[in-house]
Amino acid sequence: MLIVQKFGGTSVGDIPRIKNVAHKVRAELDKKNKVIVVVSAMSGVTNQLVNYCNQVSSLTSDEALIEYDSVVATGEQVTCGLLALELQSMGYKARSFLGWQIPLKTDDVASKARIEEIDGEKLLQILEEFDVVVIAGFQGIHEKSNRITTLGRGGSDTSAVAIAAAVKADLCDIYTDVNGVYTTDPRITEKARRLKKITYEEMLEMAYSGSKVLQTRSVAMAMAHNVRVRVLSTFEEVNDNSGTILINNNEEIMERRMITGISYAKNEVHVTLVKMPDHPGVSAAIFGALSEKEVNVDMIVQNISQDGKFIDITFTVGRDDLERAKIAIESVKDEVKYDHIAIDDNIAKISVIGVGMASHCGVAHIMFKTLASKGINILLISTSEIKVSVLIAKEYGELAVRSLHDAYGLDKK
Amino acid sequence: MLIVQKFGGTSVGDIPRIKNVAHKVRAELDKKNKVIVVVSAMSGVTNQLVNYCNQVSSLTSDEALIEYDSVVATGEQVTCGLLALELQSMGYKARSFLGWQIPLKTDDVASKARIEEIDGEKLLQILEEFDVVVIAGFQGIHEKSNRITTLGRGGSDTSAVAIAAAVKADLCDIYTDVNGVYTTDPRITEKARRLKKITYEEMLEMAYSGSKVLQTRSVAMAMAHNVRVRVLSTFEEVNDNSGTILINNNEEIMERRMITGISYAKNEVHVTLVKMPDHPGVSAAIFGALSEKEVNVDMIVQNISQDGKFIDITFTVGRDDLERAKIAIESVKDEVKYDHIAIDDNIAKISVIGVGMASHCGVAHIMFKTLASKGINILLISTSEIKVSVLIAKEYGELAVRSLHDAYGLDKK
Repeated sequence: MLIVQKFGGTSVGDIPRIKNVAHKVRAELDKKNKVIVVVSAMSGVTNQLVNYCNQVSSLTSDEALIEYDSVVATGEQVTCGLLALELQSMGYKARSFLGWQIPLKTDDVASKARIEEIDGEKLLQILEEFDVVVIAGFQGIHEKSNRITTLGRGGSDTSAVAIAAAVKADLCDIYTDVNGVYTTDPRITEKARRLKKITYEEMLEMAYSGSKVLQTRSVAMAMAHNVRVRVLSTFEEVNDNSGTILINNNEEIMERRMITGISYAKNEVHVTLVKMPDHPGVSAAIFGALSEKEVNVDMIVQNISQDGKFIDITFTVGRDDLERAKIAIESVKDEVKYDHIAIDDNIAKISVIGVGMASHCGVAHIMFKTLASKGINILLISTSEIKVSVLIAKEYGELAVRSLHDAYGLDKK
Repeated sequence: MLIVQKFGGTSVGDIPRIKNVAHKVRAELDKKNKVIVVVSAMSGVTNQLVNYCNQVSSLTSDEALIEYDSVVATGEQVTCGLLALELQSMGYKARSFLGWQIPLKTDDVASKARIEEIDGEKLLQILEEFDVVVIAGFQGIHEKSNRITTLGRGGSDTSAVAIAAAVKADLCDIYTDVNGVYTTDPRITEKARRLKKITYEEMLEMAYSGSKVLQTRSVAMAMAHNVRVRVLSTFEEVNDNSGTILINNNEEIMERRMITGISYAKNEVHVTLVKMPDHPGVSAAIFGALSEKEVNVDMIVQNISQDGKFIDITFTVGRDDLERAKIAIESVKDEVKYDHIAIDDNIAKISVIGVGMASHCGVAHIMFKTLASKGINILLISTSEIKVSVLIAKEYGELAVRSLHDAYGLDKK
């Protein structure tokens, strides 16, 4: 088998943990598997580097983000070298590779680059020369400018899946500090249950809706390239029953659940552009500007005033994107003529997710009824084929998750 | 003017110091100078990275040193990005460059690479696009293997001088934590005096003999390419009288001193290969093996036994090279048949240096007489045209320096 193993920041958080990771790698090598390892930076290191950058720059220009990428990419450079050294000390022929050495080619959007190409054949040739290669996650290169790029926070998952797709790996094991994907965050309710399987679509909605287990882009990429992804804990022994595996909906028979999981996002901000003259092109101008600034907008609602002359547009964005969102909105102020911007970050988004939703009626009804019975007011609603999300006041967030977990019977196998 | 400014680890030791460095850069930009900045890692960072490496590897193989280079090169990657960000925040068009981005091409001797080529024309073209470029010191690339290399500890000085030579800079200012080159270490005697000028040859001997102000290789490179180097303090205001400037002996008229300075090295180790059969090729075998392992040997003495059948060979090496020296020696044990190796690290090397030595008699005589008058025994002697070095017991080191500084009248202008 050809396996890609990815280890996150807490898994490589210090030297003893890097040695533990080397043992996880050895376990696969002992089984005569070919292994490519992808690593994050030691936990805390990226934050420290970002903090340094913030002390010398507002990081608003492209030029600044180019430097930011070069600085923060060092975290993974350190861990991949150290893991290669430890594997060498165990007697393996190991070598580390940085984004520009593979090369893992990306576009030129500094700090949020997208992977454009990885030469899987070349990577397989490199792997022929070594027992194991260790690749720095999170980073790539924009070849034309010869600059290091980074893929955005949590981008190492995406690196791992993209590499697994490029070399057509049999399995992409994502090692993290939890032992799989749960019906909801186990810190909120002890009734949360580990899922043995989850579909790509569900995982995508979970990630998008606030589950921190996998980065959204990595799941989308796994789905697009049909990469078999498994989520595992670095701190437990691994066996065939471990973790959660991502599957195709129709690929493997599974229990037919109405709801698979509930996710809870606290890091979104509710932005309202108040009192704009209602004429065509307002939304296009606003969301065009946001898109240009690479702001991911989540829920969107448009309200019209009673006299029909003015509209309000409300949307949610991640807290990290708020500054860029404000710049984008101000750039179209002359065009869309809003009176003011109202920002509320005292909100939480609760999403119930499941591919079974399509064939079960009443999912939304149960949700609204349950929240109403607890006196929780719903501020915004958005739905997809396999998800219902609501925005509520943050103080009710955990209560809502626990109530819904019970209401959908997620604690029962 | 085209100026290369190099800032060492203490100069960029934290964010406020990086901001201070940016002000030093601005001072040159304000004078309409073109500036290339070369930076070291934040002080302490390289040690931390080396320490990490030591925890996972003995770092004896070439494969391990390749990883070591990749890990330790991150220190400079961080500081050059941060300084570029700070300069951008001041309003300058600034960009950082890593060794592989320039590229600063080296040979493939991991952890001790030598610079082979820097394309000065290309670097000048890059400089056309920016107000200032910031280059990571200490690192380069071995292009064939596409691996990061480092130049050995203190290699940032060498980077700066090599870059200054490649672009034919008018001046290479080396900013450090001392305000110039002194007649001897001011921590040993307060009578030590700053030298306004020193010849390349003298500086080379000073560096080679233990003065930490500039790395030996950087001085040799400055001499070879006739780079005008000035040593300055980052923590003082700079004027035309500041620092110490390196000059050609015959280029500028200078006071004719018998002795220019005294250096003091505590980090050498005295190695003796005891009782070897005296046959041709013994020395060649030993020093060939040492050279192959990139061990720099300093003083060498060969003794013959009274019956003429056996010889001892004694030499000194830097403490950092001792492990590699032992491996080299053991590799020729079958050939040279030494009885055992005796190692003494309780020694100090004192060197008196001056181009005036050639035209003044009695330099060595004053040295030996002074040491004898203090009851200091000389273990080894070596000389060059402009230097006399002696090895003595470490406990007498500082006394020897102070006595010689007085004896040669170095405190007098």
